Amino acid sequence: MTLTIQELAQACDAQPQGGDPSLTVHSAADIMSAEAGQVTVLSDNKYKKYLKDTQASACFIANTFNIDEVPAGLTLLRCDDPEICFLSAVGTLHPTAKIEKQISPQAVIAENSTLGDNINIGPFSTIGQHSRIGDDSDIYAGVHIGNNVSIGKHCKIYSNAVIYDNTVIGDNVIIHSGAIVAADGFGYKYRNNQHIKVPHVGNVVIADNVEIGANTCIDRGALGSTTIGAGSKIDNLVQLGHNNKVGRNVIICGQSGISGSCTIEDGAILAGSSGIADHVKIGQQAVVMARSGVSQDIKAGAQVWGSPAKDRKTAWKELAALSKLPELLKKFKELQSRVEKLEN
Amino acid sequence: MTLTIQELAQACDAQPQGGDPSLTVHSAADIMSAEAGQVTVLSDNKYKKYLKDTQASACFIANTFNIDEVPAGLTLLRCDDPEICFLSAVGTLHPTAKIEKQISPQAVIAENSTLGDNINIGPFSTIGQHSRIGDDSDIYAGVHIGNNVSIGKHCKIYSNAVIYDNTVIGDNVIIHSGAIVAADGFGYKYRNNQHIKVPHVGNVVIADNVEIGANTCIDRGALGSTTIGAGSKIDNLVQLGHNNKVGRNVIICGQSGISGSCTIEDGAILAGSSGIADHVKIGQQAVVMARSGVSQDIKAGAQVWGSPAKDRKTAWKELAALSKLPELLKKFKELQSRVEKLEN
Amino acid sequence: MTLTIQELAQACDAQPQGGDPSLTVHSAADIMSAEAGQVTVLSDNKYKKYLKDTQASACFIANTFNIDEVPAGLTLLRCDDPEICFLSAVGTLHPTAKIEKQISPQAVIAENSTLGDNINIGPFSTIGQHSRIGDDSDIYAGVHIGNNVSIGKHCKIYSNAVIYDNTVIGDNVIIHSGAIVAADGFGYKYRNNQHIKVPHVGNVVIADNVEIGANTCIDRGALGSTTIGAGSKIDNLVQLGHNNKVGRNVIICGQSGISGSCTIEDGAILAGSSGIADHVKIGQQAVVMARSGVSQDIKAGAQVWGSPAKDRKTAWKELAALSKLPELLKKFKELQSRVEKLEN
Repeated sequence: MTLTIQELAQACDAQPQGGDPSLTVHSAADIMSAEAGQVTVLSDNKYKKYLKDTQASACFIANTFNIDEVPAGLTLLRCDDPEICFLSAVGTLHPTAKIEKQISPQAVIAENSTLGDNINIGPFSTIGQHSRIGDDSDIYAGVHIGNNVSIGKHCKIYSNAVIYDNTVIGDNVIIHSGAIVAADGFGYKYRNNQHIKVPHVGNVVIADNVEIGANTCIDRGALGSTTIGAGSKIDNLVQLGHNNKVGRNVIICGQSGISGSCTIEDGAILAGSSGIADHVKIGQQAVVMARSGVSQDIKAGAQVWGSPAKDRKTAWKELAALSKLPELLKKFKELQSRVEKLEN
Repeated sequence: MTLTIQELAQACDAQPQGGDPSLTVHSAADIMSAEAGQVTVLSDNKYKKYLKDTQASACFIANTFNIDEVPAGLTLLRCDDPEICFLSAVGTLHPTAKIEKQISPQAVIAENSTLGDNINIGPFSTIGQHSRIGDDSDIYAGVHIGNNVSIGKHCKIYSNAVIYDNTVIGDNVIIHSGAIVAADGFGYKYRNNQHIKVPHVGNVVIADNVEIGANTCIDRGALGSTTIGAGSKIDNLVQLGHNNKVGRNVIICGQSGISGSCTIEDGAILAGSSGIADHVKIGQQAVVMARSGVSQDIKAGAQVWGSPAKDRKTAWKELAALSKLPELLKKFKELQSRVEKLEN
Repeated sequence: MTLTIQELAQACDAQPQGGDPSLTVHSAADIMSAEAGQVTVLSDNKYKKYLKDTQASACFIANTFNIDEVPAGLTLLRCDDPEICFLSAVGTLHPTAKIEKQISPQAVIAENSTLGDNINIGPFSTIGQHSRIGDDSDIYAGVHIGNNVSIGKHCKIYSNAVIYDNTVIGDNVIIHSGAIVAADGFGYKYRNNQHIKVPHVGNVVIADNVEIGANTCIDRGALGSTTIGAGSKIDNLVQLGHNNKVGRNVIICGQSGISGSCTIEDGAILAGSSGIADHVKIGQQAVVMARSGVSQDIKAGAQVWGSPAKDRKTAWKELAALSKLPELLKKFKELQSRVEKLEN
């Protein structure tokens, strides 16, 4: 979409400064690659050097950010929070393609299901017995929704996601393609030379404003629910085992795995490829750094690293020490000889 | 389903003791959360403390388990193996929803395929040339089964699983949603500045009673088969490369990866996110602990940890030693000075 | 397919030596398991010992490879590059099943899409607005292709892959089942106690001759493109985050993860389950060894291991030293005592 800089500034709650706000912009770009006709953002001092040469037509920038020299022809868009204003500009200039809201004649929908207003159900999707889809939700193509599933309003369930029976999903939830919600958890009892399957009769409950990445798997509870609190965001290819309790506004990055019956408290962050053993509690706002393996409870606010994970600073001290170990082994031998000499 | 405690005891081969066995129970719960009308289990001494306050109406417990005090109103269900009796009770009280057995008119099924009795084929599934589905098997919606695939009796293939050509699957096999069976393995020869693809003309052979988790990938053999032995259980998001030979009753936990041409012997356990390099043999009953990376053969019965994995106790000794290393470096410097002083 | 050894030799540009080249072969096998009627290959000296007992009817072998004794009845197939000749023989003897080229009446294809000649579109696939499929490409069943997607010639998109809007795919690209191309990247700004989603308005651009494994996820750019260069090969269950730039002929093995805005230069190799932090550059031909975690730029040609990854040799020296650390701690105490004794 093309807007004048003036219009964009108004839409995004910013004040134009300099340049010619009657010029138009058609798209957004980062400050290193932005060209004429584009809007960009400067929110971090380390990118300041790119400002003087930018070809962008406009640039969001904090009211408090001091600029030595503004390129001729660039309009600064002054605002309190340039990152957020810029996101808003991106959304405005690059609106998502409207999908045609329709219930595909090639979907198979149980007669006793309940469909809200203004929803979309793509071709080759199925909706099971007694399930309900809230107003304004979009179910893309090839999505399979089991029986007794409840999906809230304004949700997006992308192509080829699968949602097993009895799942409960709140409002404004996004589930990306290939995500599998509420498959059986992984539990067996070993008897007489065989693994006997633990029946999984629980479900998955996902609160409002959750986003679930592509090909992520969330197992249902054995008994009771696997739950994900409001506002939590889960990346791609994550494994979330049975009976985990994920709090609010939790961040779980790609390829992380949470085995089962864990509690991840509000605001915790699990960085990429991290893993949590079963029955572990991760405290509020705690950070598990990338590729760490956690086998014991982590306190609120702690930052841990390594496998097994420990306090970040302690772990790094050990790492630094390890790099000196080959040298230490040599020096130790030398010292031994010197002591021997003294003894003789 | 609601049963009297007496009926449930009979169904699960247990003896009621105390309380009122003519009361009813309608569901199962763990001992920490069970309420009136629920049945629970006490199988581990560490949960004994919860028994005296439980609100459960009945509790499976071993014949040999000594109880100091039984809450009034609680019926103990005495049995030899309370864990297994409880699983049976869970299955009885929470029967899985019967799916309507039908062959969907919206499935595309090759005319020369062979379909057993009492099977279900969901909408938008496809079954290729010369493939056969055994009696009582359920193929859910959106499943794609290639040519010359053989699937046994009593199997469940959940929505959006994909099974490439020539796969052979035994009886009582469960394949969860999004699992991909028998895609090409990952093999190339580098010549003249390009990677030349190794043709994968083998297949995948899965024996009876195997379970395969959601979004797990099992590549077919380059030449010959990738095989999974009877009773083995594979969790979600596992990568099983070409030409691996997985034995019987093997457990492979979530997000583990086995590169290719490995042998995983009977009863081995690969814990979560573990990885096995190519051509490695994991001996019978060996345990690869979570997040370990194995690059050499592991003996039968061994327990290994770390990356590269080594004997668990050795690895832990090293870990413990590492935590003392920063201090050792300081102490060493001090000792050096003292020796120097002695020398002078 | 059955051919005489003579015919196979001609097809694969090799010279028969010994045995009876008028005999037939019907399939290919490795040298340890090949039987009469099969062709095999000997390309590595360590398998030489298997040659004298092989039951194979023919064996590709380098012109320069010295053989002490050839089994009676075995025809050697002399050539310059036995590995490549053998691949060619495998392809010849085991041709892939021809799929019937048709556009399924059960596919939903936007009227304004552009379909090339001789293409296949499987049942229950969807093709969005203004998308185009090049000549000779095969779209299997259950594939969902968004709007404005361009797919080149001779591509294979296997069942249940999903390709979001605006993706650009070159010629001869293979995308395996369950792969998700161009879902939203994982980006949020945290404000007022909630994670605000970063709109992802970029796309994914995949060059010619790329192969993408089953259930792999490739996120689209936030602004601009995530790109994959010609000839690069990506295994199963890989996570490739937003705005990564992958060069030409790069190899990314199973379950690896690349967070975002990384540059992976031409010919780099990321071994299994490796991980790359955001904004990192991996130099040309560099090798990241299995299960390594890279948080800093890696130079061209370097080989790194560990987490955090460092030069392979340095890392292994540290590992070797670590295994001596428990002993060192003991010896150090002993030395301390000896020094103390000297001091007194």
